Formats: sequence, C-alpha cells, structure tokens
Amino acid sequence: MKTERNLIHFESGIDLESGSRLNKFDLMVETYGNLNKDKSNGILICHAFSGNHHAAGKFSADDSIGWWDQIIGPGKSIDTNKYFVVCSNNLGGCSGSTGPSSVNPDTGEIYGKDFPIVSVEDWVQSQKMLTDYLNIEKWHLVVGGSIGGMQALQWSIAFPDSLKKAGIFAAAAKSSTQNIAMNEVARESIRKDKDFHGGDYYKHNVKPKNGLKTARMLGHITYLSEKHMDHKFGRKFQDEESRVAGDVDYQVENYLQYKGEKFSDLFDANSYILMTKAMDDYDASEGNSGDLEKTLSSIKAKLLVIGFESDWLYPPQRSKEIQLAAMNVNVECSCLILYGKQGHDSFLFASKRYEKIIKSFIES
Amino acid sequence: MKTERNLIHFESGIDLESGSRLNKFDLMVETYGNLNKDKSNGILICHAFSGNHHAAGKFSADDSIGWWDQIIGPGKSIDTNKYFVVCSNNLGGCSGSTGPSSVNPDTGEIYGKDFPIVSVEDWVQSQKMLTDYLNIEKWHLVVGGSIGGMQALQWSIAFPDSLKKAGIFAAAAKSSTQNIAMNEVARESIRKDKDFHGGDYYKHNVKPKNGLKTARMLGHITYLSEKHMDHKFGRKFQDEESRVAGDVDYQVENYLQYKGEKFSDLFDANSYILMTKAMDDYDASEGNSGDLEKTLSSIKAKLLVIGFESDWLYPPQRSKEIQLAAMNVNVECSCLILYGKQGHDSFLFASKRYEKIIKSFIES
Repeated sequence: MKTERNLIHFESGIDLESGSRLNKFDLMVETYGNLNKDKSNGILICHAFSGNHHAAGKFSADDSIGWWDQIIGPGKSIDTNKYFVVCSNNLGGCSGSTGPSSVNPDTGEIYGKDFPIVSVEDWVQSQKMLTDYLNIEKWHLVVGGSIGGMQALQWSIAFPDSLKKAGIFAAAAKSSTQNIAMNEVARESIRKDKDFHGGDYYKHNVKPKNGLKTARMLGHITYLSEKHMDHKFGRKFQDEESRVAGDVDYQVENYLQYKGEKFSDLFDANSYILMTKAMDDYDASEGNSGDLEKTLSSIKAKLLVIGFESDWLYPPQRSKEIQLAAMNVNVECSCLILYGKQGHDSFLFASKRYEKIIKSFIES
Repeated sequence: MKTERNLIHFESGIDLESGSRLNKFDLMVETYGNLNKDKSNGILICHAFSGNHHAAGKFSADDSIGWWDQIIGPGKSIDTNKYFVVCSNNLGGCSGSTGPSSVNPDTGEIYGKDFPIVSVEDWVQSQKMLTDYLNIEKWHLVVGGSIGGMQALQWSIAFPDSLKKAGIFAAAAKSSTQNIAMNEVARESIRKDKDFHGGDYYKHNVKPKNGLKTARMLGHITYLSEKHMDHKFGRKFQDEESRVAGDVDYQVENYLQYKGEKFSDLFDANSYILMTKAMDDYDASEGNSGDLEKTLSSIKAKLLVIGFESDWLYPPQRSKEIQLAAMNVNVECSCLILYGKQGHDSFLFASKRYEKIIKSFIES
C-alpha cells in the first residue's frame, strides 16, 4: 500500500466559527493508494475523538497500526487498491496538526490556553481547504465514526457539491445532555489537576497527567458496552503480580488504570478539552433553530448511517433520527443498526456484515 | 412526630469481615415514633451511599429535611404514628458514626487511611448490634434503596429470624462490572487530588475537595436518567450571571458543578472511597460460590423488590434477578418495576403508586 505522510501548511490561515482566527496552520495528513486521473476516487476519513491521521497500515517499521486498519487497506472495505484514501489530524489535535501544544507563530510561544475554540464546522472547513490543496473537486466518500461521523454529516451539509457519499457511523446529529455531562466531568478532572496551570502547563514543564488519566478512564467506560464489559471482566479479581496500581482489586479497575495511564502519556490535555467541547457544541441543526429536516434538505450526497446496538454513548436511536429527518426531505439515506458487541467502539472493528455494507455502499 | 437523635456507643467493638477489628465504635441514630409494648412495630431504614441517619423531618429548626421525608412521617407510607422507625449512619460514614474522620481511641489520632475496610455485611452486623441494644427481637421491616436495599437484602440473608419483611428498592444482589468501573474513576479522582495525602489529609488541615467534587459530579450523572436529564436541561445554555464556574457553557454543566461543589464541602473523601468499595464488593451470593438461589433459600422474611424503569445504575433487570432466585427457592417475593422518571434516584421520591405499594406491603 503506497502511504504518504505530509505536514501541509496553510499560509492563508482560517477564520473560525467562534470569530477567532488562526493566521497560519498545519495539517498532518496521511494518504493511502493513488489518486486517479480524473480525481474521482478520493475517500476522506474523519477521525474520532482521540484518533489522528494515522488511520491504516504502518508508516515505518516501528510505527503502530492505524486506528481503522481493519477497514482500510488493499482489498479491504475501503480498498486502497481502488481508492485514494486521505486522513488528517484534526485542527486542535496533538498529533502534528496545529493545536494547543503548537507554537503560535505570532508570539513564538506555545498556544496553551490561548488556543481558540474549534468546532466540528471548523474541522470540516479546514478539511475543505485540504481538499482544495489536493485539487479534489468531489470526494467519492467522506466517512467517519463517532465525532468523525459528525464531520461526515457536516460535510454533506456544508459542502453538498463536494462529496458523492457520506458514511456516518456511531454518531448523532447533536450531542445529548448526558454526553455533555460526561465530558464536563472529564474536563473538570483535567482542569483541577495541580499541574494544569489554567492550560499553560507547558511553560511549567509538567503535564496534568492525573486529570487526563481520570478523564480517559471515564471516557473508556462510555465507549464499551456494559454487557461486553461484564463478559470480559465480570467481578474477577486482579492477580497481585499484574496490578498496575496499589488500590486495584478487580480486573476492570486494572484495565481502566492501565488504559488511562497509557493515554495520559500520549495525549495533550488541552486537546482533550478542546475535542470534548467541539463534540458537545455540535448540533447540525443549530443554524436552522433546531430544524434538522430543513438542515438536511440541501444534502446531495447519498448517506449511509450505521448505529450499533450496544452503543450507549450515541445509541441507535440517534442514527435513526438522522435517517428519519433525511428521508422526510427526500435525501437518499440507508440506516442500519448492527450488533457490535464493543459498544460505541464497535465502529472501529470489522465484522462480515459491517465490511460488506461499507463495500457495497462505496461501490453502488 | 417524636424524634430522637442519639450517639450510641458500642464498647464491645466489632470484628469486621476483612479480619480487622474496631475495638470500640459509635453509631449515630435517629428514631421516629414510639416502640410499642411488645416491640413488634420497629422499622429499620438503611441509607444509601451519601445518606445518613437523618431520614425524616427536621431534628431542629435549622436542620435540613431528612432524605426520605417523602416516605417516612405521620400518616405517610412508613407511618411514624404506627411504627417506630430507626435509621443509623453507617459505620465508616461521616455523619457521626465512627469512620475514617473519627479519632481512633487506641492511638488518639484520626483514623484516616488506617480505617479498616467495611462491607455491607459489616453494616448489617453493626445494625444487628444496634437492634440488640434497642431490645428489638424482630423488625417488622428492614428497608432501603440503592446500597440501602443491599443492606435490607443482606439482613434477610444473615438474620432470617430477626425481620418479618424486607424492602429492597433500586438495588441488586451484586454490583456489576460497570458499577465497579464508575466507582473506580471516582476513587481515582479523589486519590490523585494533591490534597489527599494518601488518605491522611486531616493531618495537613486540607480536604481533597476537587477530587471529591469530580467524583460526585460523575456519581450524579449515574443517579439521573438520561431522558430526565435531557428533559430538564437539554442543550440549554447557562446564563452568564448564574454560572458557578468560569468554564461552564451549558445548564447541565452548571448543575453538576453546583452539586459537586456543595457535596465536596459536606462529605468526607475517605468515607466516599470506603462506601464505594463496600458497594463494589457486595455480592450476596459470594459465600455460596455465586449461587444466589442457595443464598436466598434460608430467607424467612417476605420480600418486596422494586426497580425503576429509568434506573441505569441498578436497572430493573437486577431487581428481577433477585425475585427470580427468591421464587425458585420458595421465598415469598413480589417484584414491581415502576416508572420513576428520576433514574436511580427514583427510590427517594414519593409517587401515588410507590407510596401505596410500600404501605400495603407494611400492613399486609
């Protein structure tokens, strides 16, 4: 699989939804496969909350496997032998694109707390700039899961002529009250970490690791299904030797401790806050006073909406809401609710049915 | 309503399930109404997680209303004109009974991190000692919601001859993997607060308020139903003037911030950890290798199990499991699933149906 990784600079900057402006910015981008002559085989992948540009394969020998490698690759559902697949790290992230941990070119200092609020709409805007940079007029497909699915939906609303199809998986047209509430707990735990320093921890050469760890532990619970968690860990005790923290009794505690700790080494706390805020703030119908049908009525892309039975973060009902509104305004939209034992995370994992549906949708 | 509040001292101490021992302890106890001559009208109330002995009425003019005042009082479902109602603060709590913030009589220092692990079984044991102290041979009813319901269940298992009826509301025969996982996130946020000092914060004249606040914010989400939260707050913005924290955008965030902050002023962090651990560790059938039917087979009390539709902490299924096991071993058990819009907290609120069921059960 031909893979490229590039940091693409946008000298023009970007005007953000909040009214703020980034005078310049970079996007870290990975591409897989080859763009055909008429540039009609492009597929844009939008990543979820803690994902990044590295969606498939290994870029170098010691690289980790991409987060959607089960779906993207030669001969896979998103077939890199046929399609030119593009994935960029979102603006405000911490994997190479301009974000709170980047140096502000205007001041020469790390942005920290001064990094502006970024929205799903802004991500889509910046991805459109990337699209223009790549000279792609129309994506064959824009697709993503979770907050990536929100981006795919927003793409079809904001740039109806710039994509043929949109895949909206394990997502919703807006975050629910409970989504916002959970994210606020996560943010609170980060903000109150003694090493947060109001978001300017870089200057103090520390990281609010504890707060970020707690936030991730909570997030992790919401990504898994209760049933699957019960099946995997039940009430089993953790054996003494493999405990990662002193106070751990149960295997599920050890698992969360391990996952949280690992994540807190890798992710940036300000990006965590920014991403959760973008998620909370997303409401596709906001510009139309909550009228989702009106919002979707301008869509020209064909939509595939997939929900997962065991997902309690964006439960199946949220997928059906999108389909209902779309079909009421004659937007072509299929909605499928799949089994998916891994809860919200199900969108990440290949299954025969899921793979076949994606493939058929792309090739139809 | 005749109300008494007493701190009752147990000079004999108590041997705990963990193998540890408290050489002496106190229980803070409130009673409502009068014990009749043959001592047959006693009702024991077991409190939930953050509850205490103050279950009904006002003890003094500036006192708050008891946590189950909608259910307990003259002429109410638990009628203090007819019954002698007793509620004690659990061992390990922070409302007067011996707990981590008490002075260890053996050392003259505050227990702090040295306070032993206390279990649901220990609470029931200490309540049995209180029962003996009150010269009550048999409770007419032992009842509680949430972890209070677990205590009522445990009473009927451990002391089958000491109660006629048990009311087990919004509870379960054991905590689930997800229950444990959520509690571990709460504990993690407390333990990593810079003011926790390994549980010995009293010595430093500080309180791990931030960690406790985050823990409570999370807890609060699990007590409410998603639907009710959505109905109450939706995606409404908080107006500028009434924001309790600078970073609040939505009403639901403000609500959680307010509730968390208030709670962190009143509750003890070590008690929070202790109570969640007791909750996690409870598995009624543990002594019988997970065989719940065998565990319940010795019960002589008549059981009333109530679950609430919108409770996702201990969902209705957990109530039904208790009934199924009880009925399979010929223990008299009614199970009702009520509407209850407030999620897990529904057990706290009176409704016509709920009140009538409790009253009928008591008087049947």
